[in-house]
Amino acid sequence: MAQGQSQLDYTMAKALEGLPLEATVVNQYIDGFLKGEPSGLYEAAAYLPKLGGKRLRPFVTITCGRLFGNAHAALYYSAMSVELLHNFTLVHDDIMDKDTLRRGHPTVHAKYGETIAILAGDLLFSRAFEAAALAERHSSEQGITEELAVASVRVDEGQYLDIDFEHRESVKLGEYLQMIYLKTAALYECAARIGGKVGGMDGPVRKRASTGELAALSEFGRFLGLAFQIRDDYLGMFGDPPKTGKAAGNDLLRGKKTAIVIAAFEEGSPSQLEQIKRVLGKHQAEESEVRSALDVLKQTGADTRCAALASEYYEKAVGALDLFGDSTQRQRLMALAKFAITRET
Amino acid sequence: MAQGQSQLDYTMAKALEGLPLEATVVNQYIDGFLKGEPSGLYEAAAYLPKLGGKRLRPFVTITCGRLFGNAHAALYYSAMSVELLHNFTLVHDDIMDKDTLRRGHPTVHAKYGETIAILAGDLLFSRAFEAAALAERHSSEQGITEELAVASVRVDEGQYLDIDFEHRESVKLGEYLQMIYLKTAALYECAARIGGKVGGMDGPVRKRASTGELAALSEFGRFLGLAFQIRDDYLGMFGDPPKTGKAAGNDLLRGKKTAIVIAAFEEGSPSQLEQIKRVLGKHQAEESEVRSALDVLKQTGADTRCAALASEYYEKAVGALDLFGDSTQRQRLMALAKFAITRET
Repeated sequence: MAQGQSQLDYTMAKALEGLPLEATVVNQYIDGFLKGEPSGLYEAAAYLPKLGGKRLRPFVTITCGRLFGNAHAALYYSAMSVELLHNFTLVHDDIMDKDTLRRGHPTVHAKYGETIAILAGDLLFSRAFEAAALAERHSSEQGITEELAVASVRVDEGQYLDIDFEHRESVKLGEYLQMIYLKTAALYECAARIGGKVGGMDGPVRKRASTGELAALSEFGRFLGLAFQIRDDYLGMFGDPPKTGKAAGNDLLRGKKTAIVIAAFEEGSPSQLEQIKRVLGKHQAEESEVRSALDVLKQTGADTRCAALASEYYEKAVGALDLFGDSTQRQRLMALAKFAITRET
Repeated sequence: MAQGQSQLDYTMAKALEGLPLEATVVNQYIDGFLKGEPSGLYEAAAYLPKLGGKRLRPFVTITCGRLFGNAHAALYYSAMSVELLHNFTLVHDDIMDKDTLRRGHPTVHAKYGETIAILAGDLLFSRAFEAAALAERHSSEQGITEELAVASVRVDEGQYLDIDFEHRESVKLGEYLQMIYLKTAALYECAARIGGKVGGMDGPVRKRASTGELAALSEFGRFLGLAFQIRDDYLGMFGDPPKTGKAAGNDLLRGKKTAIVIAAFEEGSPSQLEQIKRVLGKHQAEESEVRSALDVLKQTGADTRCAALASEYYEKAVGALDLFGDSTQRQRLMALAKFAITRET
């Protein structure tokens, strides 16, 4: 335990111990919120949230709120609003991407058909805003729904760009970073901001982030989200299929212009690029072809550069927390950032 | 002009004169709100709102607000939020119904493809909540987004039931009324309520509806929406195709269990029902078959009963306005209700 790495791992494990507990509370809120008539619609809407998920975004909201005091109903409502919005995007994204599996189970449209899946997604969306409105009502804090609306516009823009990039010959790193900011990091940023805005209870008094603290939490959420998505892209290419639930080289076949592919295109030799392009965006390919393309990607050093980029954002995320004194909640946020770039699933 | 009917028509025309003007202002707000990057996404999102539409829902919001004073920015933002939400539902409904024409033009998914249409719909949805949040910020009135979220949940539930009913052998009138309340009237109710909540400006002072006035406006919106939808169902069956933009007997072929069909099933003879069922939900049928089925529907008196039902809700809508003294704005709301049940388009 004396050495750096072990110490860090220990701290991460310790600091994230609370995640399952808070996920349980959020899940109870979500369960209660996704019951209703017509039951066929609510069943389809509750299906994906009930399949699990790590609940990282609500964890961000709750932990950012707890920097200022104890958790309270409004904090859970706002945490739920972010998670519902996230699940909404998954349901619609799966329709657009024609994905039939998620979290090891059929996607909503694969199970219920596309019409019900569109409606189920829309219901999660509506309920997300209802939850945000309840967070406002319970805290008398204004602007939570506005934060969520702005984030959901960004997520939508990001998803559009992500699809658009699949059809483009090449994408610059800056364009990629803007896309993943919109698609992924904007919602983490929102999760952190509304946590800070709703804050925590110090006895009967609600305490919230100051303007400066809110700016720091925005940065933390934004950089965390970027690091998280870059790691996601790494796992989508080199991840262990039993752990990630995705086929090896999945993103390669789909033609996704992720950090890996962009790095390879910047650094690879013409013959290396030729080999990668043989599989990129081809949707169908021999397993051996995919394996050798992945090998070539590693030869270009794209995997290392991608990991370095994720680490860079990890450092920035943790740095944004300097404003806050050491505390259990700050340690948990730091551990979450570490988890974002080291996770295997 | 001395006789009842002419007097009424004159009043209706007069009272609705302001509609195009207010539609113009709302359209300016919408135009400004649906610009952005990536331009391909915003173009697809702005496409349907720019094709027109009567802007009846924003008219309701603005006129209900103007019962209490002059129009102001927050009132226009809330009016826009309702219209954006309405357009969102049209985009997604057209995907689900596989409709390729609306307002005489290709639907969003017919023009841009389904993926972009889902995203364009989601963007309208997000922007609707942003507009509602801006209405709150400009008025310091809380709960506008919550009203919109609750209405959007109901619209979603209603759309689910509408589709579900297509596959059912029979539907009771009460079930139909509940469905159209959710699908259509809940948003009119919301439009009226947020208009009343945001209210109007009396000089520098904002005046809003009292609790009792808000309840009356809810009733007005709800009954107006029911009357509007029943008339819509009438036009979907017996409307003049050049005016409605829909094929004659459109709803019959789709198997929609509208007020017309329900009334016919309650009153028709077994042989009449046999003839109707020959076409109901068949999607494809000879024009002569459709024409004779429509004739049979009229023989059962279903058209008259449907018109009577619409009138009943019209009376209730107008009655809900008794609470308010006579005023230009009240006359406009009454005229709108009359328009809802007499319109040909």
